[in-house]
Amino acid sequence: MIRIGIYGYGNLGRGIESAIRQNPDMELVAVFTRRDPASLKINTDGAEVVSVADVDKYADKIDVMMICGGSATDLPVQTPTLAEKFSVVDSFDTHAKIPEHFARVDSAARKGNNIAMISVGWDPGMFSLNRLYASAILPDGKDYTFWGKGVSQGHSDAIRRIEGVLDAKQYTIPVDAALESVRRGDAPTLTTREKHTRECFVVAAEGADKARIEKEIKEMPNYFADYDTTVHFISKEELVRDHGGIPHGGFVIRSGKTGFDGEHNHIIEYSLKLDSNPEFTASVLVAYARAAYRLKSEGVSGCKTVFDVPPAYLSPKSHDEIIATML
Amino acid sequence: MIRIGIYGYGNLGRGIESAIRQNPDMELVAVFTRRDPASLKINTDGAEVVSVADVDKYADKIDVMMICGGSATDLPVQTPTLAEKFSVVDSFDTHAKIPEHFARVDSAARKGNNIAMISVGWDPGMFSLNRLYASAILPDGKDYTFWGKGVSQGHSDAIRRIEGVLDAKQYTIPVDAALESVRRGDAPTLTTREKHTRECFVVAAEGADKARIEKEIKEMPNYFADYDTTVHFISKEELVRDHGGIPHGGFVIRSGKTGFDGEHNHIIEYSLKLDSNPEFTASVLVAYARAAYRLKSEGVSGCKTVFDVPPAYLSPKSHDEIIATML
Repeated sequence: MIRIGIYGYGNLGRGIESAIRQNPDMELVAVFTRRDPASLKINTDGAEVVSVADVDKYADKIDVMMICGGSATDLPVQTPTLAEKFSVVDSFDTHAKIPEHFARVDSAARKGNNIAMISVGWDPGMFSLNRLYASAILPDGKDYTFWGKGVSQGHSDAIRRIEGVLDAKQYTIPVDAALESVRRGDAPTLTTREKHTRECFVVAAEGADKARIEKEIKEMPNYFADYDTTVHFISKEELVRDHGGIPHGGFVIRSGKTGFDGEHNHIIEYSLKLDSNPEFTASVLVAYARAAYRLKSEGVSGCKTVFDVPPAYLSPKSHDEIIATML
Repeated sequence: MIRIGIYGYGNLGRGIESAIRQNPDMELVAVFTRRDPASLKINTDGAEVVSVADVDKYADKIDVMMICGGSATDLPVQTPTLAEKFSVVDSFDTHAKIPEHFARVDSAARKGNNIAMISVGWDPGMFSLNRLYASAILPDGKDYTFWGKGVSQGHSDAIRRIEGVLDAKQYTIPVDAALESVRRGDAPTLTTREKHTRECFVVAAEGADKARIEKEIKEMPNYFADYDTTVHFISKEELVRDHGGIPHGGFVIRSGKTGFDGEHNHIIEYSLKLDSNPEFTASVLVAYARAAYRLKSEGVSGCKTVFDVPPAYLSPKSHDEIIATML
């Protein structure tokens, strides 16, 4: 049994807790929280709820710690600190800062003789893998990543900060015409506006100036100004009823040519359609926890990404079995 | 530079020759042939054409030998024999016999301290990888593989063996309704007939009994009897003009559930749309030649499959670069 700890119990932490139940070779030992442990009710009989202050006492009781903090301020501190004591998995997703995070985590993990898997999930994660595989196979080609249809937490938060907004949900939506052009092998050059649209569902305070709110959303730099954005004002009840989920997904497509004269075109497409973004992300993290456990058992240490793990390490099946049944 | 040899110069061998040109870290050293080397014209200046009888003389001149024989009778002999002298890559695709092939090649490769990558391509190969990744991520789910639309060489050959048939091309076509049901998350149980149809373009000899030929095709056990099959009789000219290509492709889809009550559904889909089946297969083999070269350089030996290779080993880019640009 692979003994798992969950560090942080939000959407991702709960997703990991439920994913562990689908993997018979894993058990949840403890959930670590910054809140008062007595106040936290988890869903797994027999697992403890422990204060983060006591985490070091669990060094011999946990094989892999799943770190469920945010990328902005939590993970840059938590992952290097915990990697000295535990093998860990995180979902660090600030793409531009991954090299820096890798270096810091790598030296901590080597110091502790642990494996630290960083930036696991679907993007970064499965989408990254597909970008790498496809570009290695078709060097003469072009990559496209589309996100959605799905809820962007960051964009929803940005709308909520506008005066007069009580709540909001923002969907990122790939533009069909762009997707179809890429799939046809046109290899188009696409602007930001041509790739995605943004659709916003906003609950405004009573008496708030809706025209001003809509203008502020549509003109918000970085978040909305470069996109065709639609704004719908709805009631609190409608938001809860129709937009309560956290779906997401997207597409990684590579279009490339082969042949002595580049005469043959090929399309490699990977897509995800997810009812629950955090639960799917959690499921990827749990598969990589198995890989971290195995690598550590073999005496390997250091920081690893999805690029560094032989796929066989993710499966609970034996090597003989995967060769006989999946190859 | 990774020095490549090509063993067998049919469609796959020529595909490898053209793929090498797209990979600046590789060079073609020699093509080995069972034919008279003087009779063979290749497309790469500076590369030799050599009789297979002389292959052992190239042990120090070639880093990775790409074995381009057929799975029925060539590869079971060629791959173990060559793996004692060279690191090799093959595309052995008789799924049921892979464990046996693996065992035989593994002991030969270890004896020679070489790496032997077997069953590389898209199925087995990229499709296998996607079955493995998706099932590790979504343990509570169901896998579907659809092939096509594409030319099946085996089925085309089977038609050509019928009396009165001069030539034929057979397309395997996935059934749209089945694909859509899988993508919706219905998790259907599908019969052979419900998954694929078969479309045949046949050139009959003058005066041949077309009704009899059509009946023989449609009732052929294993190949056609379990499918809805359409037969078109066309002229030799039409066959050459409209069906001269070797396109293929397909879909690997996993539909799975997450959540404490399996309340969320997820779809992972990987698809290929290929203008040239042999050139795409060759491109996959060439990427894995790079991996074989690197593994061997690290002192690893033995038989490997796509399941055993860290994805980073396929890319010509450095680890720092892929982390900075692709993760």
